[in-house]
Amino acid sequence: MEALTVARASLRENLITAAVEQFHIHGYAAASVKDITDASGAAKGSFYNHFESKEALAVVALERYGAGRRLETLRDNSVAPLTRLRQHFEFLRDENIDTEFNRGCLVGDLAVEVADHSEAVRESVRQSQETWADALASAIAEAQQAGDVSKALEPTTLARFVLSAWEGALIAARADRSPRAFEVFFTVVFGQILR
Amino acid sequence: MEALTVARASLRENLITAAVEQFHIHGYAAASVKDITDASGAAKGSFYNHFESKEALAVVALERYGAGRRLETLRDNSVAPLTRLRQHFEFLRDENIDTEFNRGCLVGDLAVEVADHSEAVRESVRQSQETWADALASAIAEAQQAGDVSKALEPTTLARFVLSAWEGALIAARADRSPRAFEVFFTVVFGQILR
Repeated sequence: MEALTVARASLRENLITAAVEQFHIHGYAAASVKDITDASGAAKGSFYNHFESKEALAVVALERYGAGRRLETLRDNSVAPLTRLRQHFEFLRDENIDTEFNRGCLVGDLAVEVADHSEAVRESVRQSQETWADALASAIAEAQQAGDVSKALEPTTLARFVLSAWEGALIAARADRSPRAFEVFFTVVFGQILR
Repeated sequence: MEALTVARASLRENLITAAVEQFHIHGYAAASVKDITDASGAAKGSFYNHFESKEALAVVALERYGAGRRLETLRDNSVAPLTRLRQHFEFLRDENIDTEFNRGCLVGDLAVEVADHSEAVRESVRQSQETWADALASAIAEAQQAGDVSKALEPTTLARFVLSAWEGALIAARADRSPRAFEVFFTVVFGQILR
């Protein structure tokens, strides 16, 4: 009985991992339930034992993806707050360069493709962005306290702006297949906004 | 013969108009050739008399969409350059509010959904972004000449950054179904970047 529960949990895990990958590579509409079950090694029929719908799986996939964004490093106060912020975007940049400027960010991808059509996915994207902006804002507030960033604007305003600028940079890099948009992002964000 | 040519041209026009709308509302994968022919009032079979593929139509749809972005107003030197820049983004913002924060920008939408999978669409998105960034950069350069914007950064750097920040703001507004991301955009872009 216990072995069965473990096997079932592991099948579910495999489906989530496969969904993150398949949605990220192909997009939501283009990645079918069969693509996801095939990639996870599960039988297609087993999908609905674990998830009510592709939409329900997308919500869980977004949570899983968010957990891999290393937001905890933004709160690691053994590192100077501006350094943490820079390292956070360097991590995201390097990840995108590793995938040759493809894929973008799954949060932005599902926002663009699915948010208009699924209230559940829209709400999940919104929460992912809020969590991300909160983590950025808390590091920005610390940088303001440390006197490294002007207090002229609220940390949440700056955080939401920087997050949007990052999502847009991913779009430009994807179209351009080059790191130019990232260079522009670092130049303006760390040279003119967070200072 | 002439009437036939006119009818044919008008059918093609209807297909392009329908494609802009259908891709924008449903996304590229989710909008089928049949959706587009139905929306245009054409018979499905007639599609391939006009376009080789949905991909080829997407390239033309992007050009058509770009032509509606009113980039010419960014070069209208009867208006102060910073005012032109602000009015440009106000126009785009109001358009997005009118569609209840849905749809985003077709350039960004196709970048996210299709650029990884179609070289033709990727190149068309890239060109659209270049044309747009050039128009922004020319107004920013004028604003720098007028002494309204610091010359610390190149106009093209600022233009590309602002364009990315806008594309990202559309993503956040879409997830949030609110104009908050636009307010953040105007606050930071016109309060801190273009000054």
